[in-house]
Amino acid sequence: MSSQNIHQLDEIFHPKSLAVVGASASEPGAGWVARQIQFGFKGTVYPVNPRATEIDGLKCYPTLRDIPGPVDYVIFNVPLRLAPQIMEDCVAKKVKIAHIFTAGFSETGTAEGKQTEARVAAIAKAGGVRVLGPNCMGLHYPAEGITFNSSHSKQPGHLAFISQSGAGANRFIGLANSRGIYFSKAISYGNAIDLNASDLMEYLTSDDETRIIACYTEGVREGQRFFNAVKNCTKTKPVVMLKAGLTEGGAGAAASHTASLAGSVSTWNAFFKQTGTIQVNSLEEIADVVLALSLMTSPKGRRVGIVGRGGGLGVMATDACERAGLKVPPFVPETRQRLLNVIPEVGAGVRNPVETDARFSGIADFYTNGLKIVAADPQIDFILTHIGVDVYGGRVNDLQGEMARTADVLARVAPTLPKPVAIVLYPGEHLKAISAVLETRERLVKAGIPVYPTIDAAARAVNRLIDYHEFLKTINQG
Amino acid sequence: MSSQNIHQLDEIFHPKSLAVVGASASEPGAGWVARQIQFGFKGTVYPVNPRATEIDGLKCYPTLRDIPGPVDYVIFNVPLRLAPQIMEDCVAKKVKIAHIFTAGFSETGTAEGKQTEARVAAIAKAGGVRVLGPNCMGLHYPAEGITFNSSHSKQPGHLAFISQSGAGANRFIGLANSRGIYFSKAISYGNAIDLNASDLMEYLTSDDETRIIACYTEGVREGQRFFNAVKNCTKTKPVVMLKAGLTEGGAGAAASHTASLAGSVSTWNAFFKQTGTIQVNSLEEIADVVLALSLMTSPKGRRVGIVGRGGGLGVMATDACERAGLKVPPFVPETRQRLLNVIPEVGAGVRNPVETDARFSGIADFYTNGLKIVAADPQIDFILTHIGVDVYGGRVNDLQGEMARTADVLARVAPTLPKPVAIVLYPGEHLKAISAVLETRERLVKAGIPVYPTIDAAARAVNRLIDYHEFLKTINQG
Repeated sequence: MSSQNIHQLDEIFHPKSLAVVGASASEPGAGWVARQIQFGFKGTVYPVNPRATEIDGLKCYPTLRDIPGPVDYVIFNVPLRLAPQIMEDCVAKKVKIAHIFTAGFSETGTAEGKQTEARVAAIAKAGGVRVLGPNCMGLHYPAEGITFNSSHSKQPGHLAFISQSGAGANRFIGLANSRGIYFSKAISYGNAIDLNASDLMEYLTSDDETRIIACYTEGVREGQRFFNAVKNCTKTKPVVMLKAGLTEGGAGAAASHTASLAGSVSTWNAFFKQTGTIQVNSLEEIADVVLALSLMTSPKGRRVGIVGRGGGLGVMATDACERAGLKVPPFVPETRQRLLNVIPEVGAGVRNPVETDARFSGIADFYTNGLKIVAADPQIDFILTHIGVDVYGGRVNDLQGEMARTADVLARVAPTLPKPVAIVLYPGEHLKAISAVLETRERLVKAGIPVYPTIDAAARAVNRLIDYHEFLKTINQG
Repeated sequence: MSSQNIHQLDEIFHPKSLAVVGASASEPGAGWVARQIQFGFKGTVYPVNPRATEIDGLKCYPTLRDIPGPVDYVIFNVPLRLAPQIMEDCVAKKVKIAHIFTAGFSETGTAEGKQTEARVAAIAKAGGVRVLGPNCMGLHYPAEGITFNSSHSKQPGHLAFISQSGAGANRFIGLANSRGIYFSKAISYGNAIDLNASDLMEYLTSDDETRIIACYTEGVREGQRFFNAVKNCTKTKPVVMLKAGLTEGGAGAAASHTASLAGSVSTWNAFFKQTGTIQVNSLEEIADVVLALSLMTSPKGRRVGIVGRGGGLGVMATDACERAGLKVPPFVPETRQRLLNVIPEVGAGVRNPVETDARFSGIADFYTNGLKIVAADPQIDFILTHIGVDVYGGRVNDLQGEMARTADVLARVAPTLPKPVAIVLYPGEHLKAISAVLETRERLVKAGIPVYPTIDAAARAVNRLIDYHEFLKTINQG
């Protein structure tokens, strides 16, 4: 994409006015019009529907052409057969971008779908209207107040998400928000008759609001261009990719879902390696890696110091870290001696993993001094601290208070340490505990400490963070 | 273990009276005495503490010997140095079993710890007192009202858990309960100066209350005996084992935690294979496998039909299943045609995975008819249905109702199908959704359908279920 095109895309993603053609009068407060209002779109919203006079409190127009002022952005929420006419209207109205939510196009494999798609594409191209879709959720842009689901967070962030799956984008935004991850933009691009994954990758590479790019793809059409776009991006911004369809059944499912050629495992492995892309296997894992990329400086190596209550839980944590590619070496004798001085309990582990005190408030107490000792050990590069609600014992009445105290100590101590820290906070089993965990997680992430639900998730994510920084080193040396 | 010993163990796990030596007066309602009362122990509980006259509403005795009646079961909650004297008292009182919660013995590596442990063991052996521990949480036996944590469920079940980790046992019971898994017994055996993993495995093999045995171990002393015990058990009851310490760092951590020789990966792989033990890597995975073993008949093969809302989510689910060792073949044309008749939506997948209807209540509607069509397909052996809270759209006000309706339909339809069904119910992100998910999960599990938090977890668990049934076939043919 030329810099002119990038500039154009930036302009069309900042519309001053937005029309919903096929605005629904039957779902007040829940349709496309209401979503933009609820999400805080600052420009003008025009509902278009010949059978309504007002929708969600706004004057409704029979057609696009009846709208008095200019319209920058149009969302298609109409039956398939109407799409060509609406696109003609867009051209007449000098619309900058059309997001075609409407489905039933080439993805169905039907002649009608394919022909309609070709017609709409031709009209848009000839008329100079850029297109997102069809068959997609379109744009989620918190800073601009544009979205396909207004229940997601309005807080802007620095993650961009490019998705070939609308439902995948919707679920990912929800889960990422709940983990403390916020978006610059998320874009579901569907059948991509115009803007495709390569365009979006190029645009986001130069987008100042975006620091990290994540991507769900089932297959790409212009393979070499996509490769170049990603390779260029990873020089300055990490790319995390969930490439679906890399199993036999998955390839068949992808072909059926988006008519994508999934490609071979070896081709994609070469792609990931040569571009420095961080490959993941689930939406949860994207969030895990993004948290590490966002909040942690890269550890100098893969040696982890593990801190947490419970001897057996420490052994399991150690196995999980080593399976993920990390190392859990024993601390030097001096560290062990210093730890013994701050842990009064008989038999607590001080070798690595280290066990925190068993007193109810001991978790917070230990972190005040113990983490400094662990961080000073020359054998380790970063710290993983695991905390389960159950370690607070039976005192569930004061659970929220105890956990908040632990979070406050961690939030105070972690930033002062010479090595990065990640926290594993087990999700909890019953609603009261889960509620305390959600609150504690929010506190910690706000303080800039990444929080994971399992040791496996944390260990894999930090391992990937280190992978990416090693990749950066190799390209900077080359 | 001889059948006489098994009989003896069964007798000592059904005490008529229980004494807590070192009963704590400083934590009313929270100590060992209170736990047994709260958990519904039907026999007599005697607090023993020379510095108190009453604890948790019960008369307190200065020593064990002062208790007027017989005492079957004694819990040691005393400092290390007092343990030999208390064991002498147990002998004098003809106590059947002593659970030594006290720590600081051989696990510390100190001379005092080792010597005290040897003395206590010798006194117990000479005096005919069986011992659980030291350095362990002891027995959790809901049907008898004995526990180390009375916040766990009192509901008896058919899973027995043998654990070399006290904190691991505590966390596992909590997470298993929340998943709908209940216990016949859970036993944390610590340093095992008397009863060890082999004794417990033999006992539980012949225990009528136990149908499945799970086990956390860092290392076993009598390797051949343990091998024989497990091999004998798996003929009639599945054994699920988390063998910790199988990585280099984990082996070091295990040695430090329980002085266990972790053993080599190849030795343990041979063990798992020859005994038909189901190996897992986390406490969560034990719960996953136990759910499948408890609630599902074994599928005839590894071919899964995937049902759920969202095309991309279906592709990811397919990849996850195939990575776990399952197969996701396309349905036969007849199935696809029949599915098209019940899914009015354009472009919904019917190849496998199949997409449910997009209408808000469509999930429940689809399950009434769609699951029957999928189950009738000759290409598949079982069904995985995945449901996210987000598929119910923005109508969070009626979320609980919508999900309950889905659960009711699934609970009604699934048992009538000719093939087993497992459900993946994503956990949800905010408290309201999580609450609805917990409620729905409980409904489904009560109806006998296993529920998993991720496709990966479900796929792995069902794959292990099939492994175990294939093992049973080979030993029955051999």
